[in-house]
Amino acid sequence: MFPAPVEQLITELSRLPGIGRRSAQRITFFLLRRSRDEAAALADAIIALKDRIHFCAQCFNFTDEELCGFCRDARRDASLICVVEEPSDIIPIEKGGEYRGLYHVLGGALSPLDGVDPEHLRIKELIARVDAGGIKEVIFATNPNTTGESTSIYLADVLRDKVKVTRLASGLPVGADLEYADEATVSRALLGRREL
Amino acid sequence: MFPAPVEQLITELSRLPGIGRRSAQRITFFLLRRSRDEAAALADAIIALKDRIHFCAQCFNFTDEELCGFCRDARRDASLICVVEEPSDIIPIEKGGEYRGLYHVLGGALSPLDGVDPEHLRIKELIARVDAGGIKEVIFATNPNTTGESTSIYLADVLRDKVKVTRLASGLPVGADLEYADEATVSRALLGRREL
Repeated sequence: MFPAPVEQLITELSRLPGIGRRSAQRITFFLLRRSRDEAAALADAIIALKDRIHFCAQCFNFTDEELCGFCRDARRDASLICVVEEPSDIIPIEKGGEYRGLYHVLGGALSPLDGVDPEHLRIKELIARVDAGGIKEVIFATNPNTTGESTSIYLADVLRDKVKVTRLASGLPVGADLEYADEATVSRALLGRREL
Repeated sequence: MFPAPVEQLITELSRLPGIGRRSAQRITFFLLRRSRDEAAALADAIIALKDRIHFCAQCFNFTDEELCGFCRDARRDASLICVVEEPSDIIPIEKGGEYRGLYHVLGGALSPLDGVDPEHLRIKELIARVDAGGIKEVIFATNPNTTGESTSIYLADVLRDKVKVTRLASGLPVGADLEYADEATVSRALLGRREL
């Protein structure tokens, strides 16, 4: 029913999370009504994201420099590493405001059935950071679900002899995504972290 | 908290209808995980939309050729014109499957308080189509709200002496947007249209 370029954009937008065909159609017609400059600003922002953002050389968070903002910040406590699955998991922890250490982004959780084994995550890089010295504690903030929990248990076994390892306290709703947890719950879980 | 290119894309996405900051953030992190080619496909589709889509020379629907698919289709009844506010309003009418005539897209509804006067809409182009002859009926399918109704009444006064003018039957929920009406309701309203 639509000309090809309209249909094409609806298809591309429908691939995004939380965007169904009806929303994709609404956004497409919205962009048709906007100026070319406004639409180009969105297209340029997408390209700039892919061209300028890469992984932090130390913690594998996203950054547009060699090190991310946390790793560059001399005021943060470099003796603490909080281990998360994805960069987006850092957001609720920072919003909670309790944590002043650094991060380590694994890039997922162990899930052998899905073909995610230890060598697919940034585990040897985490071990190297601990081995380099100066780390007092590694806090696991993987998701409170099956794969997140088993990742924490696996890493605790690997690191326990080298450094103090802790896990965010329960209080997070089990089975949920850390990314969508509320700040108060994350703060409470961080304060009540327990040794593994 | 985010590097500038990440923040920039979240801001651009938040401008889209139905996308809040939380959804924009989720889409941005999703694009960061996708390949550059997949992200570029979305950016390219946005640019192609703006570069290749323009108004149909006859009815002002969107098209990537001189005339839109409806105006080019010889099987459609060229003696009927259905007048809508926006190109997206054509969708529910076509889905209803009752209508086989052509369209005329006004580009909005009359709203003097918002500075939308007759000269801002494709009204003289509609009158020219009627004056060119061969039109048996003009069906008003503007939104069933204040501005849509007053646009229909204004156009009916202008066209009544030249051609039969009708309005979609009530049955559409008043105050709603035509774009989001269900197909059955639109079909029923089309069959029950009344002369103005």
